[in-house]
Amino acid sequence: MRVSKEIHEVQKVVKDWTKKGKSIGFVPTMGFLHEGHIRLIQEARKENDKVILSIFINPLQFGVGEDLDTYPRDADHDRNIAEEQGVDLVFLPENATMYPSPLTVEMSVTKRTEALCGKSRPGHFDGVVTVLTKLFNITQPDNTYFGMKDAQQVAVVDALINDHNIPVKLVAVPTVREEDGLAKSSRNIHLTEKERKEAPAIQESLQIGRQIVQEGQKDPSEVIQATQKFLEQRTHGKIDYIELLSYPELESIEEINRPVILAVAVFYEKVRLIDNVIFYEDGEDYTG
Amino acid sequence: MRVSKEIHEVQKVVKDWTKKGKSIGFVPTMGFLHEGHIRLIQEARKENDKVILSIFINPLQFGVGEDLDTYPRDADHDRNIAEEQGVDLVFLPENATMYPSPLTVEMSVTKRTEALCGKSRPGHFDGVVTVLTKLFNITQPDNTYFGMKDAQQVAVVDALINDHNIPVKLVAVPTVREEDGLAKSSRNIHLTEKERKEAPAIQESLQIGRQIVQEGQKDPSEVIQATQKFLEQRTHGKIDYIELLSYPELESIEEINRPVILAVAVFYEKVRLIDNVIFYEDGEDYTG
Repeated sequence: MRVSKEIHEVQKVVKDWTKKGKSIGFVPTMGFLHEGHIRLIQEARKENDKVILSIFINPLQFGVGEDLDTYPRDADHDRNIAEEQGVDLVFLPENATMYPSPLTVEMSVTKRTEALCGKSRPGHFDGVVTVLTKLFNITQPDNTYFGMKDAQQVAVVDALINDHNIPVKLVAVPTVREEDGLAKSSRNIHLTEKERKEAPAIQESLQIGRQIVQEGQKDPSEVIQATQKFLEQRTHGKIDYIELLSYPELESIEEINRPVILAVAVFYEKVRLIDNVIFYEDGEDYTG
Repeated sequence: MRVSKEIHEVQKVVKDWTKKGKSIGFVPTMGFLHEGHIRLIQEARKENDKVILSIFINPLQFGVGEDLDTYPRDADHDRNIAEEQGVDLVFLPENATMYPSPLTVEMSVTKRTEALCGKSRPGHFDGVVTVLTKLFNITQPDNTYFGMKDAQQVAVVDALINDHNIPVKLVAVPTVREEDGLAKSSRNIHLTEKERKEAPAIQESLQIGRQIVQEGQKDPSEVIQATQKFLEQRTHGKIDYIELLSYPELESIEEINRPVILAVAVFYEKVRLIDNVIFYEDGEDYTG
C-alpha cells in the first residue's frame, strides 16, 4: 500500500494506472474510519482494479463554532484498516498542500442545502464540493463511494458531478446497521443504555412512514405525522426534524408522486442521531 | 476529423485515447475562428497526439446588454479551418446539452477580476470558469491553449487550474500581430483608415513603458504616465484604461519588483481595442 501526502505524486500514480487501463475507485473520508467507511472501501475493492482512500479533515466544510479542532483523529488505526481492506493508495495531504493560498475561484451550492441538516450548517456544502472537486481532479476516479447515511451529501455530490460533467460514477452505498436496525455511527457510544434501547425506533418509524406510502398514502404531511407519532411514543429523544422531500432535489412536495426521502434527526442527551429512507412513490426502495 | 455534439461521445473518445497513451491538446473557442485561434490550434497540433477544438458560445459569460444574440457565427468556415489545421475532434454542443437544467453548484471568481476589462463585465469570468470546468471534465486534456491577447482570462484560468488541481498544463500563446505590430483581431476591420494607421501606437506605447522599466524605473505611475503620454501623442482614440498590475495576481503594486502586466484599452469610433505586455521587474519578457 502506498501512502502519499503529495498531490503531484498521486496524480503521477493515477496517470500511470489510467494508461494501463486500470479502473480506479475512490473513497474520500475525514479519517477515524469506522464500519461505514469499511463498507465503502469494500464496495470500491469489489468494483475496481485500484482503490484510493483519502483522509483529509477539510477545514472549509466546518462552520464557526463547529468541531474542527476536536474532530477525532487516529492515523495509525486508519492506516491499519486501509491496509487490511486492500487499499492501494492512501492520500493524506496537509492543509497547506490542499489550500496553499486563499482561493480565487469559489464554489457555492445553491440548491439541495436548505433542508435537513444543511439548513443549520450554512457554507458546509460549499466546502464539501470544493474539496471534492480538488480530490476528483487529483485521483481521477472511475467510481466514487459515499454512504447513504448522509443522503443530503449524496444529493449534493450528485449535483456536483452532473453540473460539472465530472467523468466519475457516484456509488451510493446503503447505510450499515446494527442487528436491531440502528444506523451505525461512531457517535452511538455516547448514548445512555436507555437511549440505546430506544434508538432503533428511529429506523422503525421511517419504515412505518414508508409502509403507509406503500398502502397508498400520497400526502407528505400524513406520512410525517404517522412517523412522528410512532417515534414520540417510543423514545424520549427530542425530534429535531422529520422531513419528506423529493429526492435527489430535496424540495418540498405537495404529493408523493416521485422518489422521496423521509429523514429524521433526534437529539439525545449527548448526541444527535440521523437516519433516512429513500423510496419511490409506491414505497419501493429507491435504487437510483 | 470527428465532429460531435454529445458529451458522452466525447468522453468515450477521450477515454479511449487516454488508454492508448495519447496526449490531448484542447483549444476552447466560441467559434468564428480567426488567425489567433489558428495559432492556438497549431501550437496544440505541435505538442499533442490528439487535438480537440470546442466551439460553444457560452451564454453564462455574457452579461445583460452584451452581444450574445449578435455574436458572430460561421459553422462551415470554422469546420473548414479545423479540418485544414488537422484537428482530430470538434466538440460543438447545444446550449441544452451544456446546461440541461439550472446549476446547483455555482462558481465565482473573487480575485483577478476587479481590474482591466473585468471591472466592466461583472459575472463574466464566473461564466468562463464554469464552462471551462465542464469542458476540461469532458475533454480531459493534457494541455490547453489560450491567447495572451486576453491576459486577464489567462490569469483567471491559471487560478482555476491551480485552485482545483486540474491535471492540465495551461499554455499561454503569444498574441499574433500584423507586420506593424497591431494585435490581430476580428474587430480591426471596423477601424477607419486613419484609426488603422494610428493603432500600432498601442503596442509601441506598451514597449515604451517596458523600456523605461528596463532602464531602471520601478514606479508604476511613472511607467503609466510615459505610456499614456506616448499614446496620446500618436492616436485620436480615447484611452479607456492604462494599468500596470502584478501578474498573474492582477493586483495594484507600489513598486515594480515582480512580474507585471502593462495593459491598455482604447476606444475608437466603432471598436475598442486591447493589448498588453507582460515582463519581469527588469523589463525582460515574461515566460511564465
